[in-house]
Amino acid sequence: MVDILHKVGVRSSVDEVFKALTTADGLAGWWTTDTSGVGDTVGGRLEFRFGDLGGFDMKVVELVPDEKVLWEVIDGPEEWVGTHVGFDLSQSADYASVQFKHAGWKEPVMFMHHCSTKWAVFLMSLKAMIETGKGAPAPNDVKIDDFN
Amino acid sequence: MVDILHKVGVRSSVDEVFKALTTADGLAGWWTTDTSGVGDTVGGRLEFRFGDLGGFDMKVVELVPDEKVLWEVIDGPEEWVGTHVGFDLSQSADYASVQFKHAGWKEPVMFMHHCSTKWAVFLMSLKAMIETGKGAPAPNDVKIDDFN
Repeated sequence: MVDILHKVGVRSSVDEVFKALTTADGLAGWWTTDTSGVGDTVGGRLEFRFGDLGGFDMKVVELVPDEKVLWEVIDGPEEWVGTHVGFDLSQSADYASVQFKHAGWKEPVMFMHHCSTKWAVFLMSLKAMIETGKGAPAPNDVKIDDFN
Repeated sequence: MVDILHKVGVRSSVDEVFKALTTADGLAGWWTTDTSGVGDTVGGRLEFRFGDLGGFDMKVVELVPDEKVLWEVIDGPEEWVGTHVGFDLSQSADYASVQFKHAGWKEPVMFMHHCSTKWAVFLMSLKAMIETGKGAPAPNDVKIDDFN
């Protein structure tokens, strides 16, 4: 098993970040505009779509207000199904720290390399959305390679 | 041992990317302006500095023209020393694909999370440098958190 790890600091409160991770409106502002479902309840299902590229369905498996969000991927690309996507939040004086982990990849395939870079791009979009009011969710996301 | 993985596609030839990874001028255009040393010879030493934050010394351990660059970290932060930073290149019709691996971290510490995101930011700087003529090397790099 191999994991994708990231960290960004957002000049805001953890409360703002928690909202951006647990509401369809918040998620649509930085990951993909085509987001629907329930993110603020354990057991809720979130559906993220990326046009012709398909998408991911997540089940919310753990929530601790202002501290932790954990999803299990229940539908999507074969490499993603069964993996877990988590965000651990902590507050320092100026920043809400977002520690990210996409855990449980079976193999470090090329697609995992792509997704690692793309997660960084989307976490910078989350940071921008909260700090400036404008993220870069799909389909207006920053493209990184020939896949997307 | 845990690894940082990334991938970007650069609209260019692998030759252009190889130059950007093996010359001090090329490296100064996307990672840090304060780059010196020898990157185009196995056994060469490259010195990357980031002002007050310190820096890294790398030994070139493998070079295959237009295909592979591999460095060993020989000085820098404790967590980095002994790790390996590698770039595998391949050409498709429109893109030079850059598969990146920073391998051999002892533990997935918070600093590794930070470095993973920051590597993505710098690889996007490499892509921008080649595609647009202008990268964002330190000290004008995109800041991601309270560390840098």
